[in-house]
Amino acid sequence: MCRNHYSISNFSFTYGEDRLFFLTMSIFKYKKAEQVTWKPRYIILSYMQVVETIDEMRRLRSKLTEPVGLVPTMGYLHDGHLSLVKRARTENTSVVVSIFVNPTQFGPQEDLKNYPHDTKHDLALLEKEETDVVFMPSVEEMYPPQFDSWVEVSEVTERLEGAFRPTHFKGVATVVAKLFNIVQPTRAYFGQKDAQQAIVIKKMVADLNMNLEVVACPTVREPDGLAMSSRNIYLKPEERKAATILYQSLKLTQQLYSKGERDAERIRQGMIALIKKQPLANIDYVSIAHTETLEELDTISPPALVSLAVRFGKTRLIDNIIIR
Amino acid sequence: MCRNHYSISNFSFTYGEDRLFFLTMSIFKYKKAEQVTWKPRYIILSYMQVVETIDEMRRLRSKLTEPVGLVPTMGYLHDGHLSLVKRARTENTSVVVSIFVNPTQFGPQEDLKNYPHDTKHDLALLEKEETDVVFMPSVEEMYPPQFDSWVEVSEVTERLEGAFRPTHFKGVATVVAKLFNIVQPTRAYFGQKDAQQAIVIKKMVADLNMNLEVVACPTVREPDGLAMSSRNIYLKPEERKAATILYQSLKLTQQLYSKGERDAERIRQGMIALIKKQPLANIDYVSIAHTETLEELDTISPPALVSLAVRFGKTRLIDNIIIR
Repeated sequence: MCRNHYSISNFSFTYGEDRLFFLTMSIFKYKKAEQVTWKPRYIILSYMQVVETIDEMRRLRSKLTEPVGLVPTMGYLHDGHLSLVKRARTENTSVVVSIFVNPTQFGPQEDLKNYPHDTKHDLALLEKEETDVVFMPSVEEMYPPQFDSWVEVSEVTERLEGAFRPTHFKGVATVVAKLFNIVQPTRAYFGQKDAQQAIVIKKMVADLNMNLEVVACPTVREPDGLAMSSRNIYLKPEERKAATILYQSLKLTQQLYSKGERDAERIRQGMIALIKKQPLANIDYVSIAHTETLEELDTISPPALVSLAVRFGKTRLIDNIIIR
Repeated sequence: MCRNHYSISNFSFTYGEDRLFFLTMSIFKYKKAEQVTWKPRYIILSYMQVVETIDEMRRLRSKLTEPVGLVPTMGYLHDGHLSLVKRARTENTSVVVSIFVNPTQFGPQEDLKNYPHDTKHDLALLEKEETDVVFMPSVEEMYPPQFDSWVEVSEVTERLEGAFRPTHFKGVATVVAKLFNIVQPTRAYFGQKDAQQAIVIKKMVADLNMNLEVVACPTVREPDGLAMSSRNIYLKPEERKAATILYQSLKLTQQLYSKGERDAERIRQGMIALIKKQPLANIDYVSIAHTETLEELDTISPPALVSLAVRFGKTRLIDNIIIR
């Protein structure tokens, strides 16, 4: 019972050692000043922790309530990432998001140096999604000078992206294995946009008996169909416009398949012809492959992964659909 | 209170779903038959579980009390292995021992097919050491047909054993990573006899942030100094006698070092000269190296790993000491 006038009271305090609770309370005002009482209208409990060291992440992990969902990201978050965080939030008691631009998955000629970042914005978005812990290690923390152990998945890493980015999946598998060992999630969430990545990680988890579930979530698209990607920001206006051809060509495949076409090579050629109408587009590959082995198909039998990689200027985009 | 005459009562019953308790009870006899009472003189609670599938191992693991110690073995257990189990027993609440002759760590010309085994004897020894769980998977269970993910530790795996057995440590690191993921031990125990193996596994655990402690335990030797090894059984009587030269040459190094010798090459040559006096011995390597990088030393500064591999007929033996 409080007998003074208050309008808004906003304060924070530390609860225990780890968790910072921000309480925002607003007070109902009664007509008679004498009757003003404390009545919390809403209480926001925001206890997102941001940690930069492996030791601190482990320490927090031991206090998180299971099940724990992990969303590994390279930051510069968009709605695609947030859809993974939302999914993790609904399926787990605790949610950890990692932000780490992993140098070992970039080739020497690739965009590591220019990879976009906006940590402040990322953290604001993650707080809104009620993330429990954001793990943001430095490169030195993840790869100390003597680092020299690697996880390699064979065969499926040699095709598609692996053929164009030969060391890419060695870097991906290694950093994801490290994150899994540090965070020890019950489930880990990856975007279907990076279809081959999800396949490689599922294979690694199965082969090495890692004790977690890998969840692949649907690709999130812009209104015109372009798959969301942190790299879309590199596109010049005319390239951005031209890039819609990717999803158009995937939709073409779906249409041809729906009409009864089963000859994979005819569909590939149809896609290539469509993309080539767009003079800014340079095709790396157009593939119709088995969803697990990634072997190219002659005849389509569902499920089949239709995927492509196309360059627009210096920007390389990938996209895919699964024919079911 | 029991008023009948009993001499020895030996019975067993199943407790819960998982644990088989064998109770051996003996009864004090009093002079007057009427006063015979049940008095357990000793109760042996033996609840060792033997499991062959990964799923079953995981299920049992979730019920074990932490901390959990793991001793990975290839079976045909000797006192060296048992020293690891004893150490695990003293340092942990639960002890898991794996028996798995891992095919991926044998080269095509090596002794995989003839590797000795005696499961019944192994299990009897492990029961005596109060092992909680023995994990004995088949090759198919550990390496299903599509298996194709590997853990590789670079640099330190290329020297010494790695130079003579090029795929050996890839197989070791991979199977040990799998066992760690399946058993999720707090601590894992390895013999110092396989010095390079312990170094490789410690490096893998550090680099990939595996959440456990690796404990290397002292080499156990026969009375004449030969390091215990499952492969010693291959030795013909004259080879067995000749094999004592390994430890003699290691002791020579210790003596030379104690007398002030610091020139690594002079010591190597001394060891080689001694071993060559034994006509049955064929040297693969004699090394004095840094205990972490395994780089060969010119000048000895402790700690230094003095190690060797010598063939006697078809049997290849390794041994080492650390100069501190």
